[in-house]
Amino acid sequence: MDQLSLHNPLFATYVIAATLMILKAVSMSWLTVLRMLQVKGGFRSPEDLKKTPLNPTPNPHQLEPSEPVDRIRRIQMNDLENLPFFLASGFLYVLTQPSLLLAQWLLYGYVVSRLLHFAAYYTGQIHEVRATFWSAGSVILIFMTVQTLLAAFG
Amino acid sequence: MDQLSLHNPLFATYVIAATLMILKAVSMSWLTVLRMLQVKGGFRSPEDLKKTPLNPTPNPHQLEPSEPVDRIRRIQMNDLENLPFFLASGFLYVLTQPSLLLAQWLLYGYVVSRLLHFAAYYTGQIHEVRATFWSAGSVILIFMTVQTLLAAFG
Amino acid sequence: MDQLSLHNPLFATYVIAATLMILKAVSMSWLTVLRMLQVKGGFRSPEDLKKTPLNPTPNPHQLEPSEPVDRIRRIQMNDLENLPFFLASGFLYVLTQPSLLLAQWLLYGYVVSRLLHFAAYYTGQIHEVRATFWSAGSVILIFMTVQTLLAAFG
Repeated sequence: MDQLSLHNPLFATYVIAATLMILKAVSMSWLTVLRMLQVKGGFRSPEDLKKTPLNPTPNPHQLEPSEPVDRIRRIQMNDLENLPFFLASGFLYVLTQPSLLLAQWLLYGYVVSRLLHFAAYYTGQIHEVRATFWSAGSVILIFMTVQTLLAAFG
Repeated sequence: MDQLSLHNPLFATYVIAATLMILKAVSMSWLTVLRMLQVKGGFRSPEDLKKTPLNPTPNPHQLEPSEPVDRIRRIQMNDLENLPFFLASGFLYVLTQPSLLLAQWLLYGYVVSRLLHFAAYYTGQIHEVRATFWSAGSVILIFMTVQTLLAAFG
Repeated sequence: MDQLSLHNPLFATYVIAATLMILKAVSMSWLTVLRMLQVKGGFRSPEDLKKTPLNPTPNPHQLEPSEPVDRIRRIQMNDLENLPFFLASGFLYVLTQPSLLLAQWLLYGYVVSRLLHFAAYYTGQIHEVRATFWSAGSVILIFMTVQTLLAAFG
C-alpha cells in the first residue's frame, strides 16, 4: 500500500495527529488577537498606537507588556519550540513502519500531552504540572526521533 | 503518477509555494543582520560588545533594543508562528488530491498574503492592514488543515 | 527504488541529518530546564513563584532575566529561525534527485555548521566566529531551496 495514502492507517494516524497539532498552533495566534482585543493592549509595534477603527482611543500604555496576552505568547512560544519538530519527526517515524498500535499510542499520546500542557499553562497551574505534560510529549518526540535515526542506520 | 514527483502539477505547486516561503523566512535572518550592521546595534549577547574587526568601537548602547532591528525580528517571529505550519499543512493537503486549480489558489494565495503582510509590516502600515493580510493567510492555512483532517477520517 | 525508503541512500542521508537536527533542537529545551534548575531562576510565569517541591524557597528575583538561561534561549531561538526550514528544504531537495555525494556534503555540512554554531554560541565566542558558522549553514539552506525551486519549474 502507498506509504503516503490516507488509506494506509499508519499514515492516516500521523495526518490526524499532525493536523490537530497544526490547528492547535494556529489557534494560539487567534487567541493572542482575542486577548489583545479584550485588554486593549499588549501591542508591540509603534504604529499600533495610531488611531484606527479598531483602536479609537490609543494610549502609550497599550505597548506595555500585558500578562493575559503574554501568557498566550509564552504558550505559543512553547509550541514553536516543539510542534515543528514533532511534525517532522512523526512523519519520518511512520515511514519506518512501526506497529500501528505503537504509532497510535505515541502520536495520539503526544497530542494529548500538548492539550494537557495547554490547559495547565492557560489556567496557571504550578510549574510541576505544566512540566510533567511537557516532558511526556518531549520524551515521545525524542523516542520517535531516535528510533528513526536508528532505522536509517539499520 | 508519483505523488511526490515534480512532474505532478499538484506537488510542483506545493514545492514552488514552499520554497518561496522558505526563502522568505531565511531572508528575514539576513535582513536582521543587515539592519544590525546599519544601526551598529540591536545586539543581544554580551560577547557582541568585544572589539572585533566588524565592531571596532563597541559601546554598551549596542545591546539596547533598536526599533529598526526589532521590526525585522517581529516580522520574523510572525513567520515562525506561521510558516512551519504552512509547510506541513500544504504538503499533507496536496496528498489529499484536491483539484489543481483550488490548490493553486490556496497555496499561491498564501504566498501572496505573506508577501503583502511583510510589505505592510516593513513599512509600518496601521495594524488593520497588516492584520488583514495575516488573517487571509491564516484562514487559508486553517482551511487546508481542516480539509486534510476530514480526508483522513473519510 | 522508493523515494521515501530508508534503503534509498539519498533519503537515508536526509533522515540522518533531519533526526540529528531534531534531537539538537529538543536538547535546547532540556538544557534550558537544566540551567533554570542550576541558577534557580530565569523563570517567566508568575505561577513559577509558588512554593513547590522543586522550588521550596521562591523569591521575586527568580522572574528576572538570567544570562546563563537566556544564552540557551537565544541559541534555541536561532534554531527555531533555521531548523524547521532546513527540515522542509532538505526533504524537498532530496526529492529532486541530486547526486548522493552532493546531498551528503550539503546535508551533513549543515549539521556540522549548526553544531559548530552551538559550540561557538555556548562558549561565548566573538560574533564573527558564531556568524561564520551560521552563515555557512544558511548558505547551504538557500542553495538547496533555490535548486529545488528551479527543479520545480524545470
